[in-house]
Amino acid sequence: MLATTDSKHSKPTGFDDIIAPVEASLHALTAFLDNQSNEFETEVREMVAYCLKNQGKRIRPVLVFFSGWPITTENQDLLVRASAVVELVHLATLVHDDILDDATIRHNSDTASARWGNAAAVLLGDALFSQALKLASDFPTVEVCRAVSLATRRVCAGEIRQTFERGNANFALDEYFRVIELKTAELFKVSCFLGAHLNGYSETAVNAAAEFGRRLGIAYQIYDDLADILGDEKKIGKTLGTDLASGKYTLPTLLLLQDGHISSKELLEIKQSGKFDHEHFLGQLRDSGIIERVHEIFLKEIDAAEAAIISVQDEFQAGEYLLRLSEFVRLQMARYS
Amino acid sequence: MLATTDSKHSKPTGFDDIIAPVEASLHALTAFLDNQSNEFETEVREMVAYCLKNQGKRIRPVLVFFSGWPITTENQDLLVRASAVVELVHLATLVHDDILDDATIRHNSDTASARWGNAAAVLLGDALFSQALKLASDFPTVEVCRAVSLATRRVCAGEIRQTFERGNANFALDEYFRVIELKTAELFKVSCFLGAHLNGYSETAVNAAAEFGRRLGIAYQIYDDLADILGDEKKIGKTLGTDLASGKYTLPTLLLLQDGHISSKELLEIKQSGKFDHEHFLGQLRDSGIIERVHEIFLKEIDAAEAAIISVQDEFQAGEYLLRLSEFVRLQMARYS
Repeated sequence: MLATTDSKHSKPTGFDDIIAPVEASLHALTAFLDNQSNEFETEVREMVAYCLKNQGKRIRPVLVFFSGWPITTENQDLLVRASAVVELVHLATLVHDDILDDATIRHNSDTASARWGNAAAVLLGDALFSQALKLASDFPTVEVCRAVSLATRRVCAGEIRQTFERGNANFALDEYFRVIELKTAELFKVSCFLGAHLNGYSETAVNAAAEFGRRLGIAYQIYDDLADILGDEKKIGKTLGTDLASGKYTLPTLLLLQDGHISSKELLEIKQSGKFDHEHFLGQLRDSGIIERVHEIFLKEIDAAEAAIISVQDEFQAGEYLLRLSEFVRLQMARYS
Repeated sequence: MLATTDSKHSKPTGFDDIIAPVEASLHALTAFLDNQSNEFETEVREMVAYCLKNQGKRIRPVLVFFSGWPITTENQDLLVRASAVVELVHLATLVHDDILDDATIRHNSDTASARWGNAAAVLLGDALFSQALKLASDFPTVEVCRAVSLATRRVCAGEIRQTFERGNANFALDEYFRVIELKTAELFKVSCFLGAHLNGYSETAVNAAAEFGRRLGIAYQIYDDLADILGDEKKIGKTLGTDLASGKYTLPTLLLLQDGHISSKELLEIKQSGKFDHEHFLGQLRDSGIIERVHEIFLKEIDAAEAAIISVQDEFQAGEYLLRLSEFVRLQMARYS
């Protein structure tokens, strides 16, 4: 891409453009993670290497790197290690999630549970968690261990709540927000916290970065849940509407329920039969204006995320990069209007 | 019990007598753990409290306290916290083990997986792991986090190997020792390491305590596996010989196999039919002298554990207490001759 005099204010829309400033760090992370499988006991290595090969967007590492900006030869190693910690925790939760969801495919590959069985996948997730905390303990102070173990505990609490609420057609809106705050926003938040903390930013800037991560995480989950219902051509191998049929009710469904467009009884019937009229459901969402309301709630979170960063823009050097990332999530969401 | 002039050399045989010197610390641990459930997010508290209520012998905390001897008003809090860390890790592994084993009863109560389902139990175990590491990060230096996360990773590796070897009638003796070293000895070892380390003992004494824990752990698992085959009236609710029928081959079976008293084919038939002639099997074990050989291997480990402690008896103040504990395990084993 040719630089223009206006390049500072141009907004790249592709994810690759947005992460270009941290491309070298992401490569360093890949090399670091590739080496990680050798750190494990021989009986786990092949499984760990397999999981590490099937990675997603690495949005959490990107948050660590941007929040730790500027990246120098002095701090890159610390930031790579911190991003490896959050990525391994994320990977561990995916391995365990796939067991709970009976998922067989993730990122176009077999899940660990499909490949090695649930028993081995439970233990593999545990080993990944342990190694994440082992890496966290390689930092000179206990701050990283503390932040990561606390975040992990909160992620588990969110997933437990989600598990217990599954199929509960009286699942309330505030319970939904509690679940996504714990299960998704917590790791986004700790990623931003670690980056800013390790770069020695002031407490105010660190807190602002953490708040950006938290709000972005909430917005991201709202987007992801909407995409699951409206259909995302990129989610190959994932059946449209699986969440609904399995009794996992997300924001659009809960708003339909709250406004009386669908009844608890109907939701229960969908769950029991495993079948529902997808077109009719989409029609209801559009006609009732629920999709617009989901967008409004999403925008409130994205706006709050951006406001947190803008409040510390004088000190916080990577504000522009983080705002491009939130802009990217905005644009992804806008495809579902 | 009345003290006698010879009391220093009397060997109490009951577990309660052996742990009497650390009774106050164990009470402090109970109070500390009771409070722990309040540290968790509200959605997990009831489950955590339930698991904490159904505790076993707390042998790992006893190892922490004895290795950290003498216990003073200054170090008791540190030792209580360290023992809570290892006990929570142990508890987390039990919760996950019970999922893998489809176990419904532990310590005469429903297992977490039987009570709340496998999905919630996976996450509960994860939350317990996380909280253990969170507590570990409350220590001023990263040593506790590092030792515990590494030990946990190794425990998982041992369990993964055991899972993959299940039903493998070519499972070799050295593989058995690798599994029990990782899955059992590692937590015994880290318990002794933490106690001695936190009390500021020399590196030599800390290493000796860790070696005591490691060897005692191996011996303890050999004892536990023999008891499972020969029948332990205390293991109420656990079917005799379940390990064999489920294809989990332990030392007595592996020796029978190695010496040609039983064939791989016979083991496979037992596993496939789920039935086997228990009396005939016990007869084979006795007639072939395998039970004596299991005792010899056990004694080699117990002797090595004790030798490690005796080597540092000048510095290491709790040697006598640890030796009473190993003597207790010896006596437990002797019931199965």
